Amino acid sequence: MPVVTIEMFEGRDKEKKRKLIKSVSKTISEVLEIPEERIQIILHEIPKENWGMRGEQVSEIK
Amino acid sequence: MPVVTIEMFEGRDKEKKRKLIKSVSKTISEVLEIPEERIQIILHEIPKENWGMRGEQVSEIK
Amino acid sequence: MPVVTIEMFEGRDKEKKRKLIKSVSKTISEVLEIPEERIQIILHEIPKENWGMRGEQVSEIK
Amino acid sequence: MPVVTIEMFEGRDKEKKRKLIKSVSKTISEVLEIPEERIQIILHEIPKENWGMRGEQVSEIK
Amino acid sequence: MPVVTIEMFEGRDKEKKRKLIKSVSKTISEVLEIPEERIQIILHEIPKENWGMRGEQVSEIK
Amino acid sequence: MPVVTIEMFEGRDKEKKRKLIKSVSKTISEVLEIPEERIQIILHEIPKENWGMRGEQVSEIK
Repeated sequence: MPVVTIEMFEGRDKEKKRKLIKSVSKTISEVLEIPEERIQIILHEIPKENWGMRGEQVSEIK
Repeated sequence: MPVVTIEMFEGRDKEKKRKLIKSVSKTISEVLEIPEERIQIILHEIPKENWGMRGEQVSEIK
Repeated sequence: MPVVTIEMFEGRDKEKKRKLIKSVSKTISEVLEIPEERIQIILHEIPKENWGMRGEQVSEIK
Repeated sequence: MPVVTIEMFEGRDKEKKRKLIKSVSKTISEVLEIPEERIQIILHEIPKENWGMRGEQVSEIK
Repeated sequence: MPVVTIEMFEGRDKEKKRKLIKSVSKTISEVLEIPEERIQIILHEIPKENWGMRGEQVSEIK
Repeated sequence: MPVVTIEMFEGRDKEKKRKLIKSVSKTISEVLEIPEERIQIILHEIPKENWGMRGEQVSEIK
């Protein structure tokens, strides 16, 4: 019954997110040998001004 | 000082969320025997296209 | 399909955690009008030396 | 490689968030003696009607 | 720079976790078209008595 | 009322964690101009075999 949370930048379109959910679910199902029914995946889309790397907002990194 | 995070579909109205916060807080306070002042509850509202079940976006499940 | 995460101090016994899971699940089921089958609850037990309040480890607060 | 998540009320402006990311990153880098390149900071901005304290939505607390 | 958190039951051995990390990382890298260097994966292993489904501790479900 | 979660490798001693909590709390208090009483910090210590970078368990990276 894994619960997978993916924090990522916002802005991917619906189709990309569909593929992400589909592939991650399939991968985990195969590796852990559990049916996909047991897996939930939650995407948190984070604006780049809310994400810090190297001490800077990603929105400001060139 | 529990911190409770609830990941749920977006779209419930303000009154429903008010009741959710009130009841979960009261329940935890009673079971753990701590005052409600010590409990924080955070709701994460997730769009259905960001939530995967059975390998599919919930927005696409009929 | 809410996923509920509760961060709390470690040290409650199994029976207390059983009651916590049971009551929170029931409460959410009633307020959101969804069956309990759809609700998952995950307890994160945190040692007091890993929890900070008022700038101090809770293990050091008298 | 710490990953820092900060749940906070929504509404701070971009400059305030820039300073928050910069200072938290610097502080952790100094205390843990690791380069800032290894630290990621993610801000979750939570609407006050989604945050519960003392059993109430913060949006309703006077 | 996605950060992936997987909440799962404790008890998988090191080799299984190695494969899980490897495959999930590869899958996300391919779908989002970003190098694996940018992806971090964190496994939270949860004891079955800390996981609730259908209102019950998973440790008690037969 | 920020809630700060820090995911980091396990193994820092109690004194190091005390300093981490103290400094992060002070930093956030100053930047957001809120009293330290309102800030909670939770450390999640993750074993290196549960942390993946570049597709590998950190425990296996030389």
